[in-house]
Amino acid sequence: MLTAREVIQKKRDFGILTEAEITGFVQAYMSGEVADYHVAAWLMAVYLNGMTTGETIALTRAMRDSGRSLDLSAIASKKVDKHSTGGVGDKTSMLIAPIVAACGVTVPMITGRALGHTGGTLDKLESIPGFDARPKPDAIVKILKQTGAVIMGQTDDLAPVDRRMYALRDVTATIESIPLITASILSKKLSEHIDGLVMDVKTGSGAFMPTMERASALARSIVEVCGKMKTKVVALITDMEQPTGRAIGNALEIRECIQFLKGEAEEDLETVSIALSSHMIHLGGAAKTLEQATKMAYEAVSKGHALDRFRDIIRCQHGDVRVIDNPNLLPHAKNIQEFRARSNGFVTRCDARQLGMASNALGAGRNRLDDTIDPAVGLYLEKKIGDAVKRGDVLCRIHWNDKQRLREAIPFLDAAFQIKARRVDRRPLIHAVLQG
Amino acid sequence: MLTAREVIQKKRDFGILTEAEITGFVQAYMSGEVADYHVAAWLMAVYLNGMTTGETIALTRAMRDSGRSLDLSAIASKKVDKHSTGGVGDKTSMLIAPIVAACGVTVPMITGRALGHTGGTLDKLESIPGFDARPKPDAIVKILKQTGAVIMGQTDDLAPVDRRMYALRDVTATIESIPLITASILSKKLSEHIDGLVMDVKTGSGAFMPTMERASALARSIVEVCGKMKTKVVALITDMEQPTGRAIGNALEIRECIQFLKGEAEEDLETVSIALSSHMIHLGGAAKTLEQATKMAYEAVSKGHALDRFRDIIRCQHGDVRVIDNPNLLPHAKNIQEFRARSNGFVTRCDARQLGMASNALGAGRNRLDDTIDPAVGLYLEKKIGDAVKRGDVLCRIHWNDKQRLREAIPFLDAAFQIKARRVDRRPLIHAVLQG
Repeated sequence: MLTAREVIQKKRDFGILTEAEITGFVQAYMSGEVADYHVAAWLMAVYLNGMTTGETIALTRAMRDSGRSLDLSAIASKKVDKHSTGGVGDKTSMLIAPIVAACGVTVPMITGRALGHTGGTLDKLESIPGFDARPKPDAIVKILKQTGAVIMGQTDDLAPVDRRMYALRDVTATIESIPLITASILSKKLSEHIDGLVMDVKTGSGAFMPTMERASALARSIVEVCGKMKTKVVALITDMEQPTGRAIGNALEIRECIQFLKGEAEEDLETVSIALSSHMIHLGGAAKTLEQATKMAYEAVSKGHALDRFRDIIRCQHGDVRVIDNPNLLPHAKNIQEFRARSNGFVTRCDARQLGMASNALGAGRNRLDDTIDPAVGLYLEKKIGDAVKRGDVLCRIHWNDKQRLREAIPFLDAAFQIKARRVDRRPLIHAVLQG
Repeated sequence: MLTAREVIQKKRDFGILTEAEITGFVQAYMSGEVADYHVAAWLMAVYLNGMTTGETIALTRAMRDSGRSLDLSAIASKKVDKHSTGGVGDKTSMLIAPIVAACGVTVPMITGRALGHTGGTLDKLESIPGFDARPKPDAIVKILKQTGAVIMGQTDDLAPVDRRMYALRDVTATIESIPLITASILSKKLSEHIDGLVMDVKTGSGAFMPTMERASALARSIVEVCGKMKTKVVALITDMEQPTGRAIGNALEIRECIQFLKGEAEEDLETVSIALSSHMIHLGGAAKTLEQATKMAYEAVSKGHALDRFRDIIRCQHGDVRVIDNPNLLPHAKNIQEFRARSNGFVTRCDARQLGMASNALGAGRNRLDDTIDPAVGLYLEKKIGDAVKRGDVLCRIHWNDKQRLREAIPFLDAAFQIKARRVDRRPLIHAVLQG
């Protein structure tokens, strides 16, 4: 058995660690024999020198096995989850879960909170009065049996070493490493014992992997590792240069989801949500072809089945279902201010990162995990890239509660929009699909 | 001011840290705001991505200023120290201090303990009954005034951050980094406010920098940083392929030193000791040319002045000076066993590292800092590289006290010696001299 120092040294010297060495190192970290400073030095060596697919698999497995897995053996049907690397105005999770469940595939969806400039599905759902994002294990199975889907936060005993390692990566500047991100995501997802995973890797200004190169590398890594760990996987690289849909902010996004499920879908949000749903339905075996799955997904929305499922999910997770028919029961901001164009032309930039920062400044997001969120505030985009505008047209509406915060948000909005004389093409919404 | 994470990230991304950033980081580490895990990740980034001379100077200065410096302002004459990267049978420090002091240059020598396969000057001196390697600050000045030299261990308040950082480097596999080694050595040496430093960088199997390439890089780094910090400096790259002199082990090496100072010098030990001494005498301004300094060094030995100084140093540091005239008062092993040649030919290998390990196995060294040392045991080489041997000739004598330890030492001796039909040339003793 190698000592901690020898494990670090091997990675430092570009060596390839064996499965036993990685497992031993992770277990010793859990038991306290290996200290944070050992792991910190090792993480930096991994960041700079990389890991092979084999090493990443070993790390994923060791991290997954650091806790208990979610026992979903009582659910007979196929279980498929989706994971997104996070974006701005990305409300697809709340649409996908009911759509896919309505098509007969079970969706045990574990999702996260807002951090940095990005939003979090849990925070959005918690803007529905009463919504419980942390159901107990036996409740999870019950909800899944009743509705086919659950949307919840990570439990404490799911891959617990990931929480410690993530916190350490955060303070030691070792977050942005493809093998470490891969192991972090998959250790949690594979604890659910799912049959398939659809990965949504965002690229563009509002994504954690802004460049296509980095996004592709992460997608390839996830597909390779997940595939070799005997779980079906598809990765989509989707665009996050501008926000998806029009709403940014917690309750505002829930409103947009309800509208969507009632049949008033924004085109980009529909394209991305249906694409992700189709792959999940297909992976889950409810459709023989992807084309068939796509048709099923569209129908689940048009026939109102997805809306019914969404209602069921909210009810089973103790949320106030009346919000579906009366969205005014959702929190709403005291003030709405218009942000207007200062020239004529076409919108050539509607920058997701800047809009995320603006929404964050208003109070919709978090800079630290313990910041509290204002569920009511946010932005509603009236114009997006490619739209013609005249001077004085409303570019977006600012839903705000605090004057000081409004002032802080404005510079981000100034930076977010650009208007030029020539129209630019919108980027494709789906850049690539990688199969496991 | 950058946060700890930003300092790590900058180095991770091959950035060049400013003096203020490095100083802030080191000070925050001392004050406890920056944790071991921050520093561990940063050390690995430095190990893998390197540091510029400017960064190394800033780190050296910040580490030096982490403690109090040695106040030697009461000493009017020039003060020059020597530092060696460590070797096997390297007893030059104990010869150089009295030689250089006898030539009128003050030598406030701070030296270390045995670690790994290498010996330590402090441990060797402590085999002299009563010798005090940790004189109090006011005693140091008194000894220097009386004898012109002191040989002592590092005090607690000299560059204290180096001790913490070194311990952290040890457990995180970040020892062997040229800029980190440079800063570690010079932060301590420059706390002495010396006028000059002669650096002995060992190369060959028994050295910490086995290759010429690495040894040269360290020598260049030391000369550059020390020079820019306004301290005269010369670095010699000397050979450590086979041990220097014939004795390996604490009391055995003191005996060899006494013999040397009485005029019975081994040629290689003399060459290296006189070369280092000459540069110190020259840097200290006691000779106008290096040639003159060399002549002075030889004469200090031949006229007995260096022996007198050695006696003074031992007396002032409370050691039993009678060992000079009666070396049998030094600890000696209960048994001496001969290790013999198994074939005829010439010695082609007399490997310093293996001999260091053998001596260590006998009890002369340490694997951990808290191991106790047996001052009596060790090796005495009868044959070295280039010597003709017949089967049955004694290659070395093993001074041992414990049968089990003797057994453990033998395989290292088997590996240390090689006898072949053709004589090989000895490597040069001094590979290069770099001036500041």
